[in-house]
Amino acid sequence: MRQLAIIGIGQTPVGELWDKSLREIAGEAVLAAMLDAGLEKVDGLFIGNMLSGILSRQESLGALVTDWVGLRNVEAFKVEAACGSGAAALRIACMAVASGELDSAIALGVEKMSETKGGDTTAALATAADADYEGAMGLSFVALNALVMQRYINTYHWQHTDFAPFSINAHQNALTNPYARLHESIDYNDYARARMIASPINLLDASPTGDGAAAVIVAPIDHLLQIPTGRPLITIAGSASATDTLAVHDRHDSIWLEAAYRSSRQAYHQAGVSPDDIDVFELHDAFSIMSALSLEACGFAERGQGPRLGLDGEILPDGRIPIATRGGLKARGHPVGATGIYQIVEIVQQLRGEAGETQVPNARTGMAQNIGGSGATIITHILQSSH
Amino acid sequence: MRQLAIIGIGQTPVGELWDKSLREIAGEAVLAAMLDAGLEKVDGLFIGNMLSGILSRQESLGALVTDWVGLRNVEAFKVEAACGSGAAALRIACMAVASGELDSAIALGVEKMSETKGGDTTAALATAADADYEGAMGLSFVALNALVMQRYINTYHWQHTDFAPFSINAHQNALTNPYARLHESIDYNDYARARMIASPINLLDASPTGDGAAAVIVAPIDHLLQIPTGRPLITIAGSASATDTLAVHDRHDSIWLEAAYRSSRQAYHQAGVSPDDIDVFELHDAFSIMSALSLEACGFAERGQGPRLGLDGEILPDGRIPIATRGGLKARGHPVGATGIYQIVEIVQQLRGEAGETQVPNARTGMAQNIGGSGATIITHILQSSH
Repeated sequence: MRQLAIIGIGQTPVGELWDKSLREIAGEAVLAAMLDAGLEKVDGLFIGNMLSGILSRQESLGALVTDWVGLRNVEAFKVEAACGSGAAALRIACMAVASGELDSAIALGVEKMSETKGGDTTAALATAADADYEGAMGLSFVALNALVMQRYINTYHWQHTDFAPFSINAHQNALTNPYARLHESIDYNDYARARMIASPINLLDASPTGDGAAAVIVAPIDHLLQIPTGRPLITIAGSASATDTLAVHDRHDSIWLEAAYRSSRQAYHQAGVSPDDIDVFELHDAFSIMSALSLEACGFAERGQGPRLGLDGEILPDGRIPIATRGGLKARGHPVGATGIYQIVEIVQQLRGEAGETQVPNARTGMAQNIGGSGATIITHILQSSH
Repeated sequence: MRQLAIIGIGQTPVGELWDKSLREIAGEAVLAAMLDAGLEKVDGLFIGNMLSGILSRQESLGALVTDWVGLRNVEAFKVEAACGSGAAALRIACMAVASGELDSAIALGVEKMSETKGGDTTAALATAADADYEGAMGLSFVALNALVMQRYINTYHWQHTDFAPFSINAHQNALTNPYARLHESIDYNDYARARMIASPINLLDASPTGDGAAAVIVAPIDHLLQIPTGRPLITIAGSASATDTLAVHDRHDSIWLEAAYRSSRQAYHQAGVSPDDIDVFELHDAFSIMSALSLEACGFAERGQGPRLGLDGEILPDGRIPIATRGGLKARGHPVGATGIYQIVEIVQQLRGEAGETQVPNARTGMAQNIGGSGATIITHILQSSH
């Protein structure tokens, strides 16, 4: 396989972007990434998106966006893996360039959720779960995660408030990220007193959705040597994906992310690294319970001990395994199909040393993990800096 | 790029499959393809599907289907390019295997359209068009194609009935295809008298939608040499994709398929062949006008002369360029996101000599072209037989 690099990044702020259409926010991120890479032409576009068909009554996103950004006729498709759609698009962009079929590809994640032409967002998000066996029972996505969190708390004897550090860290880190949806510091008392949504998940356990788009450009290193950038070379050292059962009740163990375990192990193997080598980790903190489960499945904590890393301060930007360094899903926001690419943009910022006040010191190796469904599709990427 | 082959095919009948769910029809095609290939394990699954989110309230198809068919934990995503989703999934399966990331991949196309949980099918299909500039005007998909056909007839001075041979040939060829939706011979008078849908498109210009799934398995030739099949080796000699503007009115020329021209030229170049070398061509006859436009863009007819091939009998199984040899979209049926894979299955049948009464004599090189939107995304594959 050709060695690959990420040579450009772009993003829009996450929020309620009422004055911009789906194609406009997509275009804003793509053009920012092309400008960042210094490219006027790219060979292909792979778009991570979950809900455009239901909420915007718009499929065919490939042709929609290529024309809008001045890449008419270029190969382009939409890729869907629920909230893991963003990283799925990057995974396919990597395959496209690694195969030699394309010499450069944009992986775009885009979601427009505030304004809908097709029904409510909670019902739309439930399409990530098993429609016949979970959706048909009226299980919303937050309810599914609440069941998982309750089981975890009972099994490992935690208090609900032991999860507070995940949310506090995310909110703190978002304060200086201009693209984040929430710029609001929270403390332990805010967390403990937050309004309950689906017990034990309260408002500060859950990430806000939103509109947003993020894009990265993938190119092979051999081509890249001719492009002087004056920046460190950011290589894709690992890229792997795995699935689990779609319905949570079908799993042998409902509080273990088997697909996170498998995809992270494969990515570590490809990159020739271990969890000890990861300097920064953008994980999929759609709900605080998912932070604990990801940290465990990826080898940063023993089973049942994920919350301990938060309580001990190890997840802070200067801790052993910094997470949500630009706000995470919890505070940067979770425009679902775009999230996986926001994570990659943020890891690139860390590896370039462009992460401002939440810069992780000497970050050389970063990992991003994006989850579709309640652990059903999990994609892990490891990036490394040449510095 | 690794040289690739198609080593297994599977399909369900196209129709109103009321007694089978989305996962069941998907599983039926996948398991048939695995049985045909003699494989019990495949490394990845790429699913072409357009409407599962809207009609079945089900996304996350990757995890849904891998678990159902006994491939739990295997990498899997959904790929969307409207009615071109099937071939888009094959294109990505090819990239996945060619890159060396996977050693085998299933490209599945599946659509469940008869039974909906989310509104009507015509409105859902309109999401293939530009929602802001076409859909918002109330343009249905058939209306868009009617405008294109009217313009074509006016420009090149054809009679509507000059398109009859496309539909008559498709219906005739479907008679002996057990997987086809329609088994009904039609003649010139039936065509001329058929009920008008959106002038000039009548009922016999339009393809029937339906439920259905088809699957093919892609593997690299180097691996394949160890698998004795007793069948000719079917290689993927060309694979290419291009886009055009999503809205038809944005095109310089509304009766020319630029993306078909580009993707077919690239596929010819990859395969080292010209239109003269194509023995059989499964084109995207969603409406009869699209047959004419595809034949012209791919170099089988001069501009404006597509209908002549039908009138001269050149599209019949023993003609110069046989099309719709198993019924085409018109009579095999058009389960939209599955269609692109049905076309590949049918080309493989022709190249294996398994096409029964509509076998094209000495078929060695076959082409399939799948279209998403009104010419917005067009994917062309060329397959060759070792016989």
